Amino acid sequence: MATAVAGKGLEGIVAANSGVCWIDGEAGVLAYRGIDIHELAEHSTFEETTYLLWNGRLPSQLALREFHAQLALARELDQRIIDMLRSFPASATPMEVLRTAVSALSFYDADEKDNSHDANVRKSYNLTAQLAMIVAIYDRLRKGKEIIPPDRSLSHAGNFLWMLNGVKPSETATRTLDIALILHADHELNASTFAARVIAATLSDIHSAVTGAIGALKGPLHGGANEAVMRLLLAIDKAGADPVEYVKNMLANKQKVSGFGHRVYKTEDPRATHLRKMSEQLGRDAGQSKWFDMSRAIEVYVKGEKKLNANVDFYSASTYAMLGIDIDLYTPIFAISRIAGWSAHVIEQLDDNRLIRPRAEYIGPVYPTHWVPVEERG
Amino acid sequence: MATAVAGKGLEGIVAANSGVCWIDGEAGVLAYRGIDIHELAEHSTFEETTYLLWNGRLPSQLALREFHAQLALARELDQRIIDMLRSFPASATPMEVLRTAVSALSFYDADEKDNSHDANVRKSYNLTAQLAMIVAIYDRLRKGKEIIPPDRSLSHAGNFLWMLNGVKPSETATRTLDIALILHADHELNASTFAARVIAATLSDIHSAVTGAIGALKGPLHGGANEAVMRLLLAIDKAGADPVEYVKNMLANKQKVSGFGHRVYKTEDPRATHLRKMSEQLGRDAGQSKWFDMSRAIEVYVKGEKKLNANVDFYSASTYAMLGIDIDLYTPIFAISRIAGWSAHVIEQLDDNRLIRPRAEYIGPVYPTHWVPVEERG
Repeated sequence: MATAVAGKGLEGIVAANSGVCWIDGEAGVLAYRGIDIHELAEHSTFEETTYLLWNGRLPSQLALREFHAQLALARELDQRIIDMLRSFPASATPMEVLRTAVSALSFYDADEKDNSHDANVRKSYNLTAQLAMIVAIYDRLRKGKEIIPPDRSLSHAGNFLWMLNGVKPSETATRTLDIALILHADHELNASTFAARVIAATLSDIHSAVTGAIGALKGPLHGGANEAVMRLLLAIDKAGADPVEYVKNMLANKQKVSGFGHRVYKTEDPRATHLRKMSEQLGRDAGQSKWFDMSRAIEVYVKGEKKLNANVDFYSASTYAMLGIDIDLYTPIFAISRIAGWSAHVIEQLDDNRLIRPRAEYIGPVYPTHWVPVEERG
Repeated sequence: MATAVAGKGLEGIVAANSGVCWIDGEAGVLAYRGIDIHELAEHSTFEETTYLLWNGRLPSQLALREFHAQLALARELDQRIIDMLRSFPASATPMEVLRTAVSALSFYDADEKDNSHDANVRKSYNLTAQLAMIVAIYDRLRKGKEIIPPDRSLSHAGNFLWMLNGVKPSETATRTLDIALILHADHELNASTFAARVIAATLSDIHSAVTGAIGALKGPLHGGANEAVMRLLLAIDKAGADPVEYVKNMLANKQKVSGFGHRVYKTEDPRATHLRKMSEQLGRDAGQSKWFDMSRAIEVYVKGEKKLNANVDFYSASTYAMLGIDIDLYTPIFAISRIAGWSAHVIEQLDDNRLIRPRAEYIGPVYPTHWVPVEERG
C-alpha cells in the first residue's frame, strides 16, 4: 500500500474535512462557520456562538431563546455524580476530576446507548451544562464550601461564576468570561478536538470522545499552558524580579516560556488580541495592573528576542487572575468552553464517518528477529 | 503553509516513527519488536511479550523473573477505587466502568505528577495489573458476588481468570487466554493507540492517554467488534437459522457483518489464524463445536462472497464464549491486553515528543460571513 510520510506531529497534514472552523495561520484569521472571531467576540455570546458551531448558522430569535432554555434546563447533575465528587481525595486536581466525572456522566445519560445525530445533540447540551457545574461544584467541595444550586436565569458564563463564587457576578465579570468562552470555543483540529474525533470515529460514544479530549487538554503543550503562564507571573512577583530579566534568564537556560508561539499561527493569534485588551481593561478597572504590565513586558521582550507571538493562553492567565479564579481552574475553564467545539466536531465526524487509523514508519529491530528460549539469551 | 491532504481517516499516512510493532498488510505479517507474532503466540507469554514491547528485546531469565514479580506486586487497588466501583449503577457497562475507574486511578498513583520515562514505566506496571483487576472485580460486584483477592503466584492471564471466576483456572484456559492476550497486545497505530499518542503528545499524563484509549477501543469499529460477532452468533443460534442464509440476508439488507476486513491487512490477519485454531480446539475439547462451526461457515461464505478475511475479532468471540466469559467482557479483555501496547507507545511518544496537531480542509460557509443582529436574521 502506498504510504505518505507526514511531518512530525502531523504538521501540515489535512486529516479531515470540516465546516466548523477556518484558520488562516499566515493572516491570523480565525472564523467559526465563516464568521470572524473578532465579530463574535464583539457582538456574540457563548450561547449564540455554540448554536452557530453546532448548527452552521446564527440562530433566529426563537431558536436562540430555545437554545438558552435548553442549556439552562440541562443544568442538572445526578446526585450520584455529586456524591462521587465528594469521595475524591483533596489532592485530586480539577482536570483529573473533570476527566473522571465526565466519564461517569454516561452512566446517567438517558441517551447513552443512542449514537444518532439527534441523541448526540441532546448529549451535547447536557455535557455543556454539566462540565461547568462539575468544575464549580468540585471547587466548592474541595474548599469545604456548600454547593450553590444552578441559576437557570443566568447565562452559561454568569451561572458558572455564580456556582463558583456564590455571589451574583458583576456584568463586567460575566461579559469578560463570556468573551473568553467565545474565544476558546473551537480551534479546528487542535490536539484535544483531534483526539475526540479519533475516538468518535470508532463509533464509540460522545462521552468517551469528550473524556479523551479533556485528557489531551490537560497537557501543558495544550490547555495546560495558561496555568503555566500564571505560575510564571507568580514566581516573578514572588521573587520581586524584573519580568524581562527573569524571562531572559529562563531563555538562556533553555527553559520554555509558556504562552508563546503556535503551530498554526505565524502571526498574532487573533484570540490574544482580545484577551490582551480584557486583561488591560480589568487591570485598569481594578486599579491593579500588575499582572497586565508584567505580561506586556514579557510579551514585548519575547516577541523581539524570539520572534514568537503571544498565543491564546498568554493573556487568559492574567485575565482569569483578575477575575479572582484559582490557577488550577484555568484549564477546566478552557474545557467548559471547548466542549462547544468538541461536540460540533464529534457530531460532524459521525455524520460522515471513517475510522481514523494512520500508519507508523517502523524503526525497530529488523524483521525477522527470532524468539529464542530464555536460557539461550545473551 | 504547505499542506498535504491525507486519505479519509488518515489512510496510508505515516503519522509517527515507531519501533514497537511492524505490520506488512500485504503479506499478513505482524511482529512485535521484530519478532513474528506466530513465534510469540507459540512460545511466549503475555508477561514476556509485554517486557519485549516495553524494552525492545526479550528479557533475560533474571529480568523476566523481576518483571513477573513487579507485575504481581502491582496487583493492588486502592480501597477507594473499589468503593467507587460499588457505587456505579448496575446499568453501567464494563467499558464505561473501566474508562471511569482508570481515570480515577491517577488520584492514587504516587507518580501522578511525574511524567518522566521511569515514572511512566512504573505507572505502566500499575495500569497493566489494575486494568485486569478492575474488570474482574466489577464483574463480581455487578453479579452480587464477593471480590476475590489477587493471587500473586499466578500469571496475568491466570490471575484474571481466578479473580473473575473464583476458581483456579485450568491450564488450557490460562494458556488460551494468555495467547489471546499476546495476540492483542499491540497493533501499531490502531485507533486507540493513536488516540493515546495524540493525548500523550500534549505532555498530559499516561492515565489520560489510557483513559482516552479505552474510550476509543469501546467503539464497534475497533475493540467493540468481537462483542458484535458474538451477538450475531447468538442471534443465529436463537433463530435456529442456517448461519450462511442468515448472513446472506444481512448482506442483502446492507447490514455490516462484524469481524471481517481490516484497514491494514489485505490478506489473512495473522492473529485470526491462532484464534481460529484455539476456537476449534476448545470446541473439540468441550465436545461442543457449535460456535466454531457456525463461525467457520460464516467465514467461508463471507470470504467467498465479499473477498473479506476474518480479522482478530472474529474468532476471539467464539474463543471467549467457550472460556465461559460474558459477552460484554470481550472488549475489556482486549483492553487488559492492549494496555501493554498503549504503555509502550505512550512512553515511546514522550521519549521523542512533538504535539500531534494536523489541519482540516475547510468545507464550511464562505469567509467572511458577517455577524448580523438577531432581529435582522432571515
